[in-house]
Amino acid sequence: MIVNNSTETDPNPQVGGFKIKAGIIGGAGYTGGELLRILINHPQVDIAFVHSNSNAGNYIYEVHTDLFGDTELKFTGELSHQIDVLFLCVGHGDARKFLEANPFPQSVKVIDLSQDFRLKEKSSISYQATDNSQPTTESRSFTYGLPELNREAIKQADNIANPGCFATCLQLGLLPLAASNNLNSEVHITATTGSTGAGQSLAPTSHFTWRNNNASVYKAFDHQHLNEIGESLTQLQPAFDKPVNFIPYRGDFTRGIIASIYLDSDLSADEVVKLYSDYYAGHPFTHVTTRNIDLKQIVNTNKCFIQVQKKGNKVFIISIMDNLLKGASGQAVQNMNLMFGLEETTGLRLKAAAF
Amino acid sequence: MIVNNSTETDPNPQVGGFKIKAGIIGGAGYTGGELLRILINHPQVDIAFVHSNSNAGNYIYEVHTDLFGDTELKFTGELSHQIDVLFLCVGHGDARKFLEANPFPQSVKVIDLSQDFRLKEKSSISYQATDNSQPTTESRSFTYGLPELNREAIKQADNIANPGCFATCLQLGLLPLAASNNLNSEVHITATTGSTGAGQSLAPTSHFTWRNNNASVYKAFDHQHLNEIGESLTQLQPAFDKPVNFIPYRGDFTRGIIASIYLDSDLSADEVVKLYSDYYAGHPFTHVTTRNIDLKQIVNTNKCFIQVQKKGNKVFIISIMDNLLKGASGQAVQNMNLMFGLEETTGLRLKAAAF
Amino acid sequence: MIVNNSTETDPNPQVGGFKIKAGIIGGAGYTGGELLRILINHPQVDIAFVHSNSNAGNYIYEVHTDLFGDTELKFTGELSHQIDVLFLCVGHGDARKFLEANPFPQSVKVIDLSQDFRLKEKSSISYQATDNSQPTTESRSFTYGLPELNREAIKQADNIANPGCFATCLQLGLLPLAASNNLNSEVHITATTGSTGAGQSLAPTSHFTWRNNNASVYKAFDHQHLNEIGESLTQLQPAFDKPVNFIPYRGDFTRGIIASIYLDSDLSADEVVKLYSDYYAGHPFTHVTTRNIDLKQIVNTNKCFIQVQKKGNKVFIISIMDNLLKGASGQAVQNMNLMFGLEETTGLRLKAAAF
Amino acid sequence: MIVNNSTETDPNPQVGGFKIKAGIIGGAGYTGGELLRILINHPQVDIAFVHSNSNAGNYIYEVHTDLFGDTELKFTGELSHQIDVLFLCVGHGDARKFLEANPFPQSVKVIDLSQDFRLKEKSSISYQATDNSQPTTESRSFTYGLPELNREAIKQADNIANPGCFATCLQLGLLPLAASNNLNSEVHITATTGSTGAGQSLAPTSHFTWRNNNASVYKAFDHQHLNEIGESLTQLQPAFDKPVNFIPYRGDFTRGIIASIYLDSDLSADEVVKLYSDYYAGHPFTHVTTRNIDLKQIVNTNKCFIQVQKKGNKVFIISIMDNLLKGASGQAVQNMNLMFGLEETTGLRLKAAAF
Repeated sequence: MIVNNSTETDPNPQVGGFKIKAGIIGGAGYTGGELLRILINHPQVDIAFVHSNSNAGNYIYEVHTDLFGDTELKFTGELSHQIDVLFLCVGHGDARKFLEANPFPQSVKVIDLSQDFRLKEKSSISYQATDNSQPTTESRSFTYGLPELNREAIKQADNIANPGCFATCLQLGLLPLAASNNLNSEVHITATTGSTGAGQSLAPTSHFTWRNNNASVYKAFDHQHLNEIGESLTQLQPAFDKPVNFIPYRGDFTRGIIASIYLDSDLSADEVVKLYSDYYAGHPFTHVTTRNIDLKQIVNTNKCFIQVQKKGNKVFIISIMDNLLKGASGQAVQNMNLMFGLEETTGLRLKAAAF
Repeated sequence: MIVNNSTETDPNPQVGGFKIKAGIIGGAGYTGGELLRILINHPQVDIAFVHSNSNAGNYIYEVHTDLFGDTELKFTGELSHQIDVLFLCVGHGDARKFLEANPFPQSVKVIDLSQDFRLKEKSSISYQATDNSQPTTESRSFTYGLPELNREAIKQADNIANPGCFATCLQLGLLPLAASNNLNSEVHITATTGSTGAGQSLAPTSHFTWRNNNASVYKAFDHQHLNEIGESLTQLQPAFDKPVNFIPYRGDFTRGIIASIYLDSDLSADEVVKLYSDYYAGHPFTHVTTRNIDLKQIVNTNKCFIQVQKKGNKVFIISIMDNLLKGASGQAVQNMNLMFGLEETTGLRLKAAAF
Repeated sequence: MIVNNSTETDPNPQVGGFKIKAGIIGGAGYTGGELLRILINHPQVDIAFVHSNSNAGNYIYEVHTDLFGDTELKFTGELSHQIDVLFLCVGHGDARKFLEANPFPQSVKVIDLSQDFRLKEKSSISYQATDNSQPTTESRSFTYGLPELNREAIKQADNIANPGCFATCLQLGLLPLAASNNLNSEVHITATTGSTGAGQSLAPTSHFTWRNNNASVYKAFDHQHLNEIGESLTQLQPAFDKPVNFIPYRGDFTRGIIASIYLDSDLSADEVVKLYSDYYAGHPFTHVTTRNIDLKQIVNTNKCFIQVQKKGNKVFIISIMDNLLKGASGQAVQNMNLMFGLEETTGLRLKAAAF
Repeated sequence: MIVNNSTETDPNPQVGGFKIKAGIIGGAGYTGGELLRILINHPQVDIAFVHSNSNAGNYIYEVHTDLFGDTELKFTGELSHQIDVLFLCVGHGDARKFLEANPFPQSVKVIDLSQDFRLKEKSSISYQATDNSQPTTESRSFTYGLPELNREAIKQADNIANPGCFATCLQLGLLPLAASNNLNSEVHITATTGSTGAGQSLAPTSHFTWRNNNASVYKAFDHQHLNEIGESLTQLQPAFDKPVNFIPYRGDFTRGIIASIYLDSDLSADEVVKLYSDYYAGHPFTHVTTRNIDLKQIVNTNKCFIQVQKKGNKVFIISIMDNLLKGASGQAVQNMNLMFGLEETTGLRLKAAAF
């Protein structure tokens, strides 16, 4: 492999007064790769290390082959504590184990992309650390990192549980109703996800021959993201106790989630539109419209589009976002920006793929 | 264009005692083409003519290019009354106009693939004809051609209104409940259709650049097929008066419809499975299962698969079929078979595309 | 799993005077499945057994899920010698091993879909058998099963080496030139194959996330099928000794191969067209045209379309066929038909998927 | 349509000492949209106007719907001369007409994305202008805007003819050989393009139903880009007079071109690799490798990857790039950066779509 022309100038000239040193655990997976694609162009981040057990010593671009020509970074099997933020891009269950086995100083902020700390009852961790050669017990408590729900808390947080992809898409479609106590009937949701939502491991349902031109339902009524969605809705509307019916589909595309949501409501069309517009007024990535939307409008961006309609006695919402960006790594960087006092959109004005 | 090797032997040797002479109006469109693909291999059909105004004089294979090598038939601009059955593959609204302008003898059975005669209040037509040089008024009355609902009536019918594609898929998912008076709550349906459902005319939503890797909702709660679905359900369960909510999606595949359907029910899982299995026991194309299904299992066949589950207090149904076959031209041939006393499956044991 | 409505009538009523009893080894793979899709509707075949070590005892439709409703056959781990023909749908290298370990009576014809016996120097096998309790050495000698090259020999053959998919597509594009001693310059070929060409095993290049909307080259100049192509060309034109350059591509579709081929030639356009038309005049599946062709015209059929042009001093050929049908299982049945004296097209008039 | 949260802060804070005022003609097409996606995030560009006759008065995001939330710009039917650079994103033939009908001051630089000025004999234009109310004849002479060929000339140029998409991909695959006088045999090229290469107009070959899972050849040996390729090759190697055979394919993906190229050569593998690496050493977007590449590695970036191999006596090259970026709008901005003395990569470090 030949990199004929390494980038000699720093692609990320320092704009503000500082650079955030970032470490990444599990850098060889989809969310790790997507995080790298963002961070190598983020003007206020230096990547301190990208950890991968299976790829230690290899160039980043040997795994994330699109990054050839962009970076000479290599994966490492070693960890450094000299960082400001640690991103955990490991499998569900492995984030908690990693932090227990590898205590980082409390000064290092953590953003976890797994589901390990999303639910309130599992949102903290205690582990044995060493402080000035003294064994001590330390703990971390995680804030649910959905900026449209918890922005102020995120700004103060040291540890973030980054929301799930379906969970982000569906919550963004429902939060304004919950915040105004307008969730008063059963909720009906169908959502279709791209193949990247299932990760890079090989499975019969990720085989091209099977998935191309195909569609299928899975985990109907049982998807694990319903739990975090439920917690967020009752955070805003504690009395909400109606069923949320969720039918997830596998789509034959790679990126993005499209959700259609409806429920009974006495609100008028204008009231619903105003409610959503007001709720998201200060949020730079979530946009409300009454026009027809389609999935590709947001692919390869950190944006979420929400189409709001009234159909008979139903509020009808369509919510679209990129599962790897607003649904994972993009939102992780959005959270990092908030935690470090940066403009929320820094490094996240991504060119849409569009086609 | 060179057909180097015309088929010299009759590909459809006469098996039973007769051949049905078929005429096709609107043979250049998707449903016309699909009908031709079936009929040229149907052992008891001779194609008398394939009418197309725009393509008169051209070889069939110049439009339906996959038929090159299979037939030397040409489109014609002329009509012949020397047929047993007439298939109308024209646009919505044009079937009624065609029959008014071109009265065929009553001895010619008609199978209309448009929506013109599907609803009971529009299911008949009167027109001026000429009988032994005497002007007379004739009329035709259409039977709704869903064999799983009306098989005995179809066998006796002279005129068939072939159901819509979504309408077929959704009714097959609901008929057993209606037939047993078990539709007792609001019904929630989401269904995704392939691009052939929109026909061959060019439109922004049929542009490859737009549709590839995309997904979108259209006509939510308003799809025109809801009317014929409603008539069938109340035919079986006259008291049914609950809303049927239907969210149609455009999928980024070419063939097939997948529908997910749920409603509240006190039936047990076993009861639901038995109910569906019993209802479809005598029907050769509609198959009930408790296994997970996926769209491509039925693509390029005349089959419908129905997956039945109980989830909490909900009956949950997934229904899949090929919109051009069981949802259009295949069902039209199935109806023809029934009308002419043939085995229902004749000419319809099609090899699935599978991949 | 419930099969609510088993097919009570024989879907394959006997037409001629006999039924061929067929056994299938390796029935759980892609070519095995495709063979089953053809044979269950073949009017003169009874499937005696479908062998699969990994799926013994399972219903066929549990693996080839599209066959649900079509057959109640199960995979078996046992072999029977009471058959007329044995299809080997196993991996390359395993066909030879299977025959050595499981000698079948010489009266059983063998059609092998692997590459084990395609090349002349490897086209026979000897093994220890038992004849009337006496150990004997038996042997089988295989005929290369490309009907457009070897039809008369196939009719006399007891053992067929079914050609490779690329090999079939490229040979059909070149045979008329070789047969007329018109291969007189270097040959340039690029061909793109669908994902089914790589079989059903999971691999990074078969992952939907990777392959969707992607394209890539593999085995450039080195593809193993070049050997069997070379043997066929020199069978017809022994003096041919020019390089055949072949660049294979992976396409982001599931079925089909499209090849573009050119070489220098003094032949006129008319001469080339005549040459191809004459060569394929008696062959029912291979059709020559001067119109533009596209891959989907032949998907899900046993046909090969060949577009012939002259461009400057080059003969320019485009050849398309379905890799699983004319490139594998369809051609295997075509060979069986020839071997047993049936009409060559029996059971192979398949409805094109078309879209 | 509601834009609930307009971007209040300037997304493009001025970094260097100036902002380039840009006007766009034909902003509603694919290349116009892609240019807008780049320029709204380009740190040293202000978009002065986006001209569209058919969309005057509409928001940009009504056409380029992915830009909703990113910009409140509208299309205009009016032109302003108060700009530094004018991008022409109009159809072939219309760029020349536009400049004749709308003379801009000579101080305004022009970058034309059509083919009107690419060939040397057509590379200049004269038109009637008005200078201080005096009618004068002015002229513009265009430089071929391929930075890897003409970077120094581009830096000095006032008018750029932006190369064609295929032309860029193929030239980048061949330039190092021409520059070293190593094009000494016939050249063989096959290249496949995505659907965006054909623009947004509706055509049968851009219909999703037709193109999905399909492949086809067009304009074999006759593609119009061969002319500009030929001029560039002889600019570097004036004696080159061998045929360049080019077979273009339509692929069933939206973005990107993949080309495979070979020719006879006495160069060793190492020599070829060195030759390519040296040639592109100073060019930030074109990267040379000996690893296997695949199309999606460069989709949604301005990069070109070139895989170099020696196969027998052939040099074998694979070249991949995004037809709308490096093959059109991205390269146009690259040219603008060079013309205005900016770092070549400014605004062009785009996140790859990757999947």
